[in-house]
Amino acid sequence: MATSDGVRPVRRALISVSDKEGVAAFAAQLHERGVEIVSTGGTARLIQEAGVPVQEVSAVTGFPEIMDGRVKTLHPLIHGGLLGRRGVDDEVMAEQGIGPIDLLCVNLYPFERTVAEPGCAMAEAIEHIDIGGPAMIRAAAKNHADVTVVTERSAYAEVVDEIDRCGGTSRALRHRLAAEAFDHTARYDRAIAAYLARYDETGAEREAPQAERFPEAWTLRAEKLADMRYGENPHQAAAFYRDPEAAEASVATARQRQGKALSYNNVADTDAALECVKGFQAPACVIVKHANPCGVAYAASLAEAYDRAFATDPTSAFGGIIAFNGTVDAALAGAIVERQFVEVVIAPEVTAQAAERFAAKANVRVLECGWWPATPGAELDLKKVRGGLLVQDRDTAVVAPEALRVVTRRQPGEQEWADLRFAWEVVRHVKSNAIVFAGGQRTLGVGAGQMSRVFSTRIAAEKAAEAGLALGGSALASDAFFPFRDGVDQAAEAGAAAIIQPGGSRRDEEVIAAADERGLAMVFTGMRHFRH
Amino acid sequence: MATSDGVRPVRRALISVSDKEGVAAFAAQLHERGVEIVSTGGTARLIQEAGVPVQEVSAVTGFPEIMDGRVKTLHPLIHGGLLGRRGVDDEVMAEQGIGPIDLLCVNLYPFERTVAEPGCAMAEAIEHIDIGGPAMIRAAAKNHADVTVVTERSAYAEVVDEIDRCGGTSRALRHRLAAEAFDHTARYDRAIAAYLARYDETGAEREAPQAERFPEAWTLRAEKLADMRYGENPHQAAAFYRDPEAAEASVATARQRQGKALSYNNVADTDAALECVKGFQAPACVIVKHANPCGVAYAASLAEAYDRAFATDPTSAFGGIIAFNGTVDAALAGAIVERQFVEVVIAPEVTAQAAERFAAKANVRVLECGWWPATPGAELDLKKVRGGLLVQDRDTAVVAPEALRVVTRRQPGEQEWADLRFAWEVVRHVKSNAIVFAGGQRTLGVGAGQMSRVFSTRIAAEKAAEAGLALGGSALASDAFFPFRDGVDQAAEAGAAAIIQPGGSRRDEEVIAAADERGLAMVFTGMRHFRH
Repeated sequence: MATSDGVRPVRRALISVSDKEGVAAFAAQLHERGVEIVSTGGTARLIQEAGVPVQEVSAVTGFPEIMDGRVKTLHPLIHGGLLGRRGVDDEVMAEQGIGPIDLLCVNLYPFERTVAEPGCAMAEAIEHIDIGGPAMIRAAAKNHADVTVVTERSAYAEVVDEIDRCGGTSRALRHRLAAEAFDHTARYDRAIAAYLARYDETGAEREAPQAERFPEAWTLRAEKLADMRYGENPHQAAAFYRDPEAAEASVATARQRQGKALSYNNVADTDAALECVKGFQAPACVIVKHANPCGVAYAASLAEAYDRAFATDPTSAFGGIIAFNGTVDAALAGAIVERQFVEVVIAPEVTAQAAERFAAKANVRVLECGWWPATPGAELDLKKVRGGLLVQDRDTAVVAPEALRVVTRRQPGEQEWADLRFAWEVVRHVKSNAIVFAGGQRTLGVGAGQMSRVFSTRIAAEKAAEAGLALGGSALASDAFFPFRDGVDQAAEAGAAAIIQPGGSRRDEEVIAAADERGLAMVFTGMRHFRH
Repeated sequence: MATSDGVRPVRRALISVSDKEGVAAFAAQLHERGVEIVSTGGTARLIQEAGVPVQEVSAVTGFPEIMDGRVKTLHPLIHGGLLGRRGVDDEVMAEQGIGPIDLLCVNLYPFERTVAEPGCAMAEAIEHIDIGGPAMIRAAAKNHADVTVVTERSAYAEVVDEIDRCGGTSRALRHRLAAEAFDHTARYDRAIAAYLARYDETGAEREAPQAERFPEAWTLRAEKLADMRYGENPHQAAAFYRDPEAAEASVATARQRQGKALSYNNVADTDAALECVKGFQAPACVIVKHANPCGVAYAASLAEAYDRAFATDPTSAFGGIIAFNGTVDAALAGAIVERQFVEVVIAPEVTAQAAERFAAKANVRVLECGWWPATPGAELDLKKVRGGLLVQDRDTAVVAPEALRVVTRRQPGEQEWADLRFAWEVVRHVKSNAIVFAGGQRTLGVGAGQMSRVFSTRIAAEKAAEAGLALGGSALASDAFFPFRDGVDQAAEAGAAAIIQPGGSRRDEEVIAAADERGLAMVFTGMRHFRH
């Protein structure tokens, strides 16, 4: 039954998902609308438990599940059902006993998350590569003239709604979902390719030779994601491009769940926020305004981290960009939209309930970027100058714990060590010259973008005072060395009890003496983090 | 036969390629080495014509080729042969009659080329989407512990060579080829996703064709000028590239007359200084430190301009970058090297006598960039974000004199107009939020890089005080509008008599009233100059 506007009925659906949130309810809704459900493994069990009758894939193919499931759906009775052209292939389908599959609901477990698992060996990572899933997704997406392909739970409601309104899905919806489906498989394979290219066959990480990273002739290819309303300023035209080889979770590869289109400055600030929050293992929150973190915190939960990050500088947080390193749930989404005006929220994942809470503030841009590996990828950074380009390694180096050198008589206490490490992680994301005061797992004051370190320190202290945060006993991080003792004096007067900085000034002796005089603990990292 | 170093023999190969160059010869070479060949369609014919026996895929599966080839290789007897783990699945493979496939040679016709064909309709493009090929490539690549996957003809020779040398392919080669294979499928699906996203379901392009400046696929080519000692920080490797099409005078096209090699930060700061000094017609000098102008002045001569620029912030000028918009002569060169430590001097021209004076300080980098046209070129600006790029027009727009709107009761006097115009020209080159106090043809205080405008103003005023420069009667420029009246109050208290700013706040009325109350003259430009 092909109607003139391309509506196609849904009579039989194959459902097999990695992201199981909401899938049983979706299957139940389809079942109520007379749709037969075919499924596999864990998804089949969930659907059955919801009281919906399910046929197993192996019952459709009549072929046993072999090789621990490696070859399950790779069968003509499945692929014929997905690829058969209604009105063209009906006869051969009938002959071969191929039943049409009108809707395919499959999504893939993000490969980045597989390999981000601590201690994931290469053999295990490879075992996790899904072959059958992508083949089905691609088949259904190709045949979207007749078949509906769902790779995101966000489409469940829309599909059910169209079935109720039109008796099937529209050509427009199927087309859009097919584009999403190829995007889904492209991302998946990009992540695998990046992983395999990064390690050699023994699982050892490859070091790219310099000549390869910085060749004589360098070509950068980018694909346009969107034209923007304007650039950094309204009189500048602009567009947002994506690196087709980009695999890591990023602002460029994230999916926007709701909200207005991202502006040029939104993209830049969201990038800054996300890259900063990636540096933390514990639940963390970063709030960025005008390209600088104005509040950063970690805690036992994302909600608590957000509270603390917000408290650092509530004035700047207004209209800011908020990044998290974990799943945003409904309570957290609610806390954000009730408390503040926010431009963008980005997180690896947003629950369906959280999405509902955000929906109350329709303008807020909500981005799901997926999960990132524990160690960052090798993407290069660029800086445009007139007539050319500066190309450099991304600044992701981490100081080895044994390279941290206490240079003062006093050693930092346990809490001080934690504060110093935290401040050091944040300061690399602040524009130079950067000074960060931290304590109690959050920033207390951030001083950014000054031509002199003394000014940055002063600003950071004033920010803390403005927010009513005491600096007594705090830790201070400086992105580059203190050239003179005045920086240490100033830090101590502001209340810092411990300092972390690269060291390496000609006057280090004088700087250390000042710290000793004032009873400070000071740690040298031997690593500078300019960021201009 | 699994040898200890992971060599795997090749006994049976499936070959089905879009790029047919060299494939018959490759098949013949494999055949000579005792490899059985399975193939399909056009590839099979070519191989047969080369006198190599070939088995058709349908003969392997016993399943007819249906749906015009849509479901050909999507069969357990093929995928089991690709995915079966040697030594683990041998028994089930034997039971099911699955013969191992040791080498897969498949490549996909670039989808970009399919849709680039003149008059390629959407239905036709979709018909060209390969489903079976990517499924096989992915299966073989997953199972590269045992299977060799070839997606590029460049690997043919290497594979044959390894078979000759080791009696099979090495683990290292199979691993590399698997990474290439997933890259191949990722690119393919990315191209499809981009195509489907670009057109709607009727085949109509979603957006009007864009200006050529921001094409869908964007390629940037650059030529390496130099590897650098390091990037923004010592632990980052870096290189400096030149846009081969760049014509305008710039840091990238300048000739270095003497001095140490430019560092990454030298290049960035020199660019900032030169682009700022280009904005002036009168002899001008810009001193940059940490990516911000810390002193800018114009005068009757470059020497005088340098004196004034230096006086704005002598502390920051130490170790700075100095740019001029005219010929540097011996007297000026002498004045610079005698007065201060300087990293870089850049000017359109340096006289031979000046070069001699500079030679006394051999480390100083002296750059001659040539002269620039009165109106800047159309080169685009880039900002790298993780996974992508922001591309925008260069911010060279100039407010037309008639667009400058005096919004206060008091009009600026002639000197105030000059100071306002000067401050406005400088403020666009200062990192946001930017505040510049100016008077007497030079900057008096520069406040940069703050998350709030109030802080930038305070910093600018403190800088002036530090340098002993009075702000009474000065002009103030703000790169973006004052959101509240507090900015105006603060400016007036610091000594400003006139303000230039974009205007456009919801509270402009309140802001104008504050200026009137305090007897200030205020000009709106209607143009913002964020620079982050």
